[in-house]
Amino acid sequence: MSSKFITLTTDFGTQDPYVAIMKGVIYQINPHARPVDIVHSIPPGQIVQGAFVLKESYGFFPEGTIHVAVVDPGVGTERKAIAIKTRRFIFLGPDNGLLWPSVAQEGEFETYVLDKAEFFLPKVSYTFHGRDVFAPVAAHLTNGLPLEDVGTRLCAPPTKLELPKPQREKEQVKGSVIWVDRFGNLITNIRAEEILDLPKGAIPVIQVANVRIKGILQTFGDARPGEFLCYIGSLGYLEIGINLGSAKEVIEASGHKVLNAEVTLSPLHLT
Amino acid sequence: MSSKFITLTTDFGTQDPYVAIMKGVIYQINPHARPVDIVHSIPPGQIVQGAFVLKESYGFFPEGTIHVAVVDPGVGTERKAIAIKTRRFIFLGPDNGLLWPSVAQEGEFETYVLDKAEFFLPKVSYTFHGRDVFAPVAAHLTNGLPLEDVGTRLCAPPTKLELPKPQREKEQVKGSVIWVDRFGNLITNIRAEEILDLPKGAIPVIQVANVRIKGILQTFGDARPGEFLCYIGSLGYLEIGINLGSAKEVIEASGHKVLNAEVTLSPLHLT
Amino acid sequence: MSSKFITLTTDFGTQDPYVAIMKGVIYQINPHARPVDIVHSIPPGQIVQGAFVLKESYGFFPEGTIHVAVVDPGVGTERKAIAIKTRRFIFLGPDNGLLWPSVAQEGEFETYVLDKAEFFLPKVSYTFHGRDVFAPVAAHLTNGLPLEDVGTRLCAPPTKLELPKPQREKEQVKGSVIWVDRFGNLITNIRAEEILDLPKGAIPVIQVANVRIKGILQTFGDARPGEFLCYIGSLGYLEIGINLGSAKEVIEASGHKVLNAEVTLSPLHLT
Repeated sequence: MSSKFITLTTDFGTQDPYVAIMKGVIYQINPHARPVDIVHSIPPGQIVQGAFVLKESYGFFPEGTIHVAVVDPGVGTERKAIAIKTRRFIFLGPDNGLLWPSVAQEGEFETYVLDKAEFFLPKVSYTFHGRDVFAPVAAHLTNGLPLEDVGTRLCAPPTKLELPKPQREKEQVKGSVIWVDRFGNLITNIRAEEILDLPKGAIPVIQVANVRIKGILQTFGDARPGEFLCYIGSLGYLEIGINLGSAKEVIEASGHKVLNAEVTLSPLHLT
Repeated sequence: MSSKFITLTTDFGTQDPYVAIMKGVIYQINPHARPVDIVHSIPPGQIVQGAFVLKESYGFFPEGTIHVAVVDPGVGTERKAIAIKTRRFIFLGPDNGLLWPSVAQEGEFETYVLDKAEFFLPKVSYTFHGRDVFAPVAAHLTNGLPLEDVGTRLCAPPTKLELPKPQREKEQVKGSVIWVDRFGNLITNIRAEEILDLPKGAIPVIQVANVRIKGILQTFGDARPGEFLCYIGSLGYLEIGINLGSAKEVIEASGHKVLNAEVTLSPLHLT
Repeated sequence: MSSKFITLTTDFGTQDPYVAIMKGVIYQINPHARPVDIVHSIPPGQIVQGAFVLKESYGFFPEGTIHVAVVDPGVGTERKAIAIKTRRFIFLGPDNGLLWPSVAQEGEFETYVLDKAEFFLPKVSYTFHGRDVFAPVAAHLTNGLPLEDVGTRLCAPPTKLELPKPQREKEQVKGSVIWVDRFGNLITNIRAEEILDLPKGAIPVIQVANVRIKGILQTFGDARPGEFLCYIGSLGYLEIGINLGSAKEVIEASGHKVLNAEVTLSPLHLT
């Protein structure tokens, strides 16, 4: 399952040369490697959001892809640098839970600690393991080195992290906003299937902050310009948006925060 | 005219994983494909701006390049997903006019509707045809599949969209600002040739919002720091900028919008 | 020392198609070239910041890489377009000092003026030499053309530019903030070694704007959330940050600018 692809998911942003430096390090070790940016816009240090984006993205890449994720507020402390091998992929990152939701979704796995300095850059900094540890190890893996050679198998499982899950209380589902996209759409953690579980004939009503929306539409074009709508987004989750507008902007203008805001889904019974 | 290059022009931004997911889909179908970002910064849903950027960019790529453009406020409605083949390129996108200015510039063309689900992702969402339709079809094309196989030839032409064109009224040319670049320079739709058509010996005077500029300079260095200037930009259009400053910021601070603002070009006759 | 890699460091931003157009031009000349973005976020026209970023990044790339840098407020004036060959790399850019700190760090070098129009785009604009001159020449170099063929050797050295250097006055070191990263960390021009030169047993005290910080920590996790800290950053310089916060935001909220701000490092003698 060897592959030249290395995906990069970080909170480094793109205004600094850090991501480019990781790519340079990769190319020095394997000029044929194919690094691909997932995003570098994870809010600084926000492991949950990094874990969410990685989980929603990694599966679209070819089998054998090395997925490197670095959202690492504990860089330079005792947290381990790890690699986790699943049936289809290898994940590299800090042992802080970032990789867990992806790995758990994949099923069986083996964990390795990256403890062999000969595969790192000669001098490892306290603050940039993306460059010094993860990029070079990922590049060596694309050169065909087995994971057994670049790390040491761990018997203990990696640090686990559960993404916030919606809770069902009687007929109501309580979830939250887990990501806000560029359009200002609110992506919730409520999956399409939850809506199908509502009582038959009832209309779904969604409440977030001070906004209440009835019904689920198929697409933006089904709402009037400027109107709030709920729909099943491309990642399979309930999303809240405004046709030709930004739900985030409108809601935050009324003094409510949208990220992590509670979202309730209730049935409206027609009599 | 086969090529591995697929350009991507969208309004998806780069803070979300959508573009990366499209690349993952492409690489799964053809690991040798070469996706290249044009921009993902088209203002959400603004087809005219997407069409303008595509038209100004596509021609710099090698013959055979597949140009995918997705600015698609009508995604999930009845609008068709199409491919248009010209002598040098294939364009893929929604049938909403986005591709038209590029295709019209290329000359002869054939239109295909993308209606063969076997070349899509197994499950097509209502909101993300970039991932589910355009990325996989583009990747299959780079694998050498002919367009005839992945779509059905249409006799009717695609939806047309005319970019705003400057109007000449006697000696005056009335155009508009069609793009604002990162530097805050205003790119108008007035081509260099219009200026050459001014009466001989007259000085061109440009008016936009509350700003009036005399003469066309060759380059920023010819203006004083902080001074407005007009020049022929690298895309061949009349542009309005400020040396070491942002024309957009200065004009908008005085309460005028710059995007789509009217721009007049008049001759000043010297006696 | 031939290579397919071309790095791009510019002030073009990524919201406009300019960088993509450069890549298209490169691919037309050499479809096997591998352009890599370093950053396009250099503040417009700021040669010093461009020179700093290039100097800190270029060395991570494989030998033979062509480094193209375009921060070019004098584009279209008499400034020359040059290439500088060092033992390991070739640098291309305007002759305004942008390349100098990198070249000086590399040691021996040869300078060429890019004066052979047959390697440019057919029509060279006054404002976009990145597309018309540097991209095509870089691509020709990756095709194996020797630098001698695409330019003319200069005897005179290129324009020199010295990055601001910290000054030592008795026991104190006076430096400045040379870059602000995405996290709002302030990267100074004071190298780790300067701190080791402080009198033995003294505690280093760092002052920037109205903030005074005692001691150097190893990593963010060693500071309390919201607390200022000094540490040696991944580029080897003294940096000032806030654990889980933005030093830039906090300092600028108190009315001080951070970019180019003076930073003093003094010993605190324990008695």
